[in-house]
Amino acid sequence: MDTQTLAQAVIDRVFVEIEASGRHVHLSAEQAVTLFGHGLTPKRPLSQPGQYLAQERVTVIGPKGQFENVAVLGPERKEAQVEISLTDGKSLGIVPPVRPSGHVKASPGATLVGPCGQIQLEEGVIAAQRHIHLTPQSARLMGVRDQQIVKMQTYTDRPVIFSDVLIRVSPDFASYAHLDYDEANACGFSRGDLGRILT
Amino acid sequence: MDTQTLAQAVIDRVFVEIEASGRHVHLSAEQAVTLFGHGLTPKRPLSQPGQYLAQERVTVIGPKGQFENVAVLGPERKEAQVEISLTDGKSLGIVPPVRPSGHVKASPGATLVGPCGQIQLEEGVIAAQRHIHLTPQSARLMGVRDQQIVKMQTYTDRPVIFSDVLIRVSPDFASYAHLDYDEANACGFSRGDLGRILT
Repeated sequence: MDTQTLAQAVIDRVFVEIEASGRHVHLSAEQAVTLFGHGLTPKRPLSQPGQYLAQERVTVIGPKGQFENVAVLGPERKEAQVEISLTDGKSLGIVPPVRPSGHVKASPGATLVGPCGQIQLEEGVIAAQRHIHLTPQSARLMGVRDQQIVKMQTYTDRPVIFSDVLIRVSPDFASYAHLDYDEANACGFSRGDLGRILT
Repeated sequence: MDTQTLAQAVIDRVFVEIEASGRHVHLSAEQAVTLFGHGLTPKRPLSQPGQYLAQERVTVIGPKGQFENVAVLGPERKEAQVEISLTDGKSLGIVPPVRPSGHVKASPGATLVGPCGQIQLEEGVIAAQRHIHLTPQSARLMGVRDQQIVKMQTYTDRPVIFSDVLIRVSPDFASYAHLDYDEANACGFSRGDLGRILT
């Protein structure tokens, strides 16, 4: 094995690139029409294949405050989900439970306002549990499985080992670790920083 | 040794209570007079002996935004220091360096506004490096020394091991670990939560 191949083999078994997710909203097709008068319009692709940042933006309103111009991610889903940080929750007056994406049952609601209408969500506001998207190949190389909880060491400005990091494996994924901005700032994250899975 | 004494002996050697520090300002006596017309007035004591939250509050202004009603901590110091999180810095348009308290040289400035005047700080805005205040007795029991860099495991809702935690030892201190709100939210901190020093 030459050095470059060896280096790549090590990297593939150990490291994953970190991304920080800002507050954002997922919508159903019907909800998109209510808010915007039409379905979502892709603006730019995200790192996860098929996922995109929409041109459309919404205002998210809670009991104590609101955020304007919140990103909407597509494609549309079966139900709405508002992902915020605990810091965001403080501004909105909402305490989001820390949950894996899609686990919105009995979570707090919020009001969403778009140019064509508004929606009162009864539930759907969560702080996304920190997680690592892996392809089946990456998961195999790293020796982890779907739904496993691992630790992740960050190679960042102020390093942190995060516990309770959820492994998610799918052939539809690209391999990236996702933190919210509380976590990203707590570890001094900059774009391109790497994490290492500790099992 | 009875169980309670043993438990206390273990706790004293291993655990430290965590506190989260919100954004706040330290001022010189002269600056307090400029902003408020008089020196700082204690409102309530903080955990560190002799330190207090002042009745007076200031507005902190950066290039992109401002925070009103920011806490001022007393007693007055030799020079001003504005401690914010990286998240706060985003709102203000200031990138604070992560520094130990008192290390403000060549850090960014900000404008402070009080009811009687305003001050343009040339420097002084930092994100306080996470740190643990220890009495000499606690430090001895825990086997750490002043200025040592340690890791700290948090026993919190979403546990984290923080690297680059600065040990500060003084007979004037009470033993507490101090995180900013990015870090506190990243680990799901609640009042009374404990940390464990890893060396």
